[in-house]
Amino acid sequence: MTKSKGRPVRIAISGAAGQISYSLLFRLIGGDLLGPDQPVALQLLETSAALPQLEGVAMELQDCASPLLSSLSCHDDPEQAFLDADVVFLVGARPRSAGMERGDLLASNAEIFSAQGRALNRVASRDVRVLVVGNPVNTNTLIALRNAPDLSPQNFSGMTRLDHNRAMSLIARQLGCRTDEISGVMIWGNHSTTQFPDLHHAHAQGLPALDQLPLRWYEETLIPTVRQRGAEIIRVRGKSSAASGANAALAQMRDWIHGIPENGWTSMAVLSAGQYGISPGLVYSFPVRVNDGHWQIVEGLDVHPDAEAGIRASETELLGERDLIRHLLPD
Amino acid sequence: MTKSKGRPVRIAISGAAGQISYSLLFRLIGGDLLGPDQPVALQLLETSAALPQLEGVAMELQDCASPLLSSLSCHDDPEQAFLDADVVFLVGARPRSAGMERGDLLASNAEIFSAQGRALNRVASRDVRVLVVGNPVNTNTLIALRNAPDLSPQNFSGMTRLDHNRAMSLIARQLGCRTDEISGVMIWGNHSTTQFPDLHHAHAQGLPALDQLPLRWYEETLIPTVRQRGAEIIRVRGKSSAASGANAALAQMRDWIHGIPENGWTSMAVLSAGQYGISPGLVYSFPVRVNDGHWQIVEGLDVHPDAEAGIRASETELLGERDLIRHLLPD
Repeated sequence: MTKSKGRPVRIAISGAAGQISYSLLFRLIGGDLLGPDQPVALQLLETSAALPQLEGVAMELQDCASPLLSSLSCHDDPEQAFLDADVVFLVGARPRSAGMERGDLLASNAEIFSAQGRALNRVASRDVRVLVVGNPVNTNTLIALRNAPDLSPQNFSGMTRLDHNRAMSLIARQLGCRTDEISGVMIWGNHSTTQFPDLHHAHAQGLPALDQLPLRWYEETLIPTVRQRGAEIIRVRGKSSAASGANAALAQMRDWIHGIPENGWTSMAVLSAGQYGISPGLVYSFPVRVNDGHWQIVEGLDVHPDAEAGIRASETELLGERDLIRHLLPD
Repeated sequence: MTKSKGRPVRIAISGAAGQISYSLLFRLIGGDLLGPDQPVALQLLETSAALPQLEGVAMELQDCASPLLSSLSCHDDPEQAFLDADVVFLVGARPRSAGMERGDLLASNAEIFSAQGRALNRVASRDVRVLVVGNPVNTNTLIALRNAPDLSPQNFSGMTRLDHNRAMSLIARQLGCRTDEISGVMIWGNHSTTQFPDLHHAHAQGLPALDQLPLRWYEETLIPTVRQRGAEIIRVRGKSSAASGANAALAQMRDWIHGIPENGWTSMAVLSAGQYGISPGLVYSFPVRVNDGHWQIVEGLDVHPDAEAGIRASETELLGERDLIRHLLPD
């Protein structure tokens, strides 16, 4: 009877009536992010059109009778949803519709994420952690943080943890080991088919992974499988990945808040300051540590010559994305 | 690096490609049932037609890279899915389709659950806990356990925890307290609109709940709201409740395995041996404690006269359901 007495952590979620959020919200009030004793206040954001459906989700959240759910509110205004938010999952994004060009997709999302960035800038906690899940992740993250000049780039990251986890799982199955026996995997670049899953620093059961895995399997199976996994899930399941995305969002936020065990690293898309020669001002997935609640790009790793081309190709793609939405970035 | 080294607990789930399972499976491999150090083997059951979609769910489960997922298998044969199972969630059931009579619905589910009962009888662990989630819950539970004569009725319960949680949540919101400050709620009878949510033994913040709540609110708001909540969720959300159902399934199984804190009780549909005058041999929701991993109906509580009629009405409905499928029950 001593639970739930601390100050609630305010968690805001956009796209809250969508499928990824449906897999995320119930885990949040079950303690999967902040533990079994930390109450949470959920601040749910949707488009006006989706508010009725969001009401149904809110009813189901109430029906869980979680002692951790201290309050729940539904909004179609980002400034209300993000008020004093400590943790934000930006899940909602506009999907590509038939006939839509890549530039249109980027631009329509840029509008959403610039408005949300401005709202975060005005009303969120100054220590807020904003995790961008909605695609195109890297460029949406860039737009949000550029529209929040009073916050720090430290307040933002984009999700490449699902790619990271997919690579981990493939290695574990190939080697017949557990995923917690693997370390040092990294995802470079854009959360897209140009990303580069790098195993050159990976270890499994204490030994270099690439000493145990055929190079051909790495290059011809792991890399394309990770890159195309999202499309493959849609093909097999008939729907895009939702629960595994929500799981990755929880994992990335958990590591960001609580730190990464054993001095390892994970992958996050964060603002480049020029590390590894990546253009400063791009949001790019790097190997990342967490120090005292702040992400920090792991520096000084040797980049294998075989990785270099992939790392550059993904940077090139991101530069192109930025060009397409540059008119929507504030100076 | 010391996780996941014990014997995996074998968890079987029927209807594994459905919406409730989609909200359940990812929490199982996240440790929400058995804790962060207990590996699990998932044995997923679906109809042959749904196996391709189940494959997509399996891919997403792999993509979580959970160190707790020790193995994963997909089946359309219950004897394979239930082999040595320690924990079983019977989620899959045939929903009512247009023009289907109540008797047809009961009969078509009776076929599913009798076959699954026989399979459990043959191959499941002798200590298996089988939680029936698929509707009509009580009668499906009865059919399953009657078709598993070599197991004990102790191995089976039907889910009324969602109704229980809905009542808890309504009380908490009405009183402005937390759900973990409420105890003594019980759901009597059938998981249907005849169920009787009984607050006559309920306490909130240490005081009798009905000393703090208007009787009229209890009778005219709480009881009908709990009874009709499922239909209301469908109306508002456009889909039936899935995540809150999965949450209740986890909660009921967790209490069954780990026990109920503080000497309280919860609600489960279990086989009556005549307690409270309920016909022996019906599966009926009672207040239930857990002793040493076994459910036990809480006996000796005074039944309030206002509850008596509701308790009898739900029993009558269950007797009627049993009559409709009696030809499918073994002697």
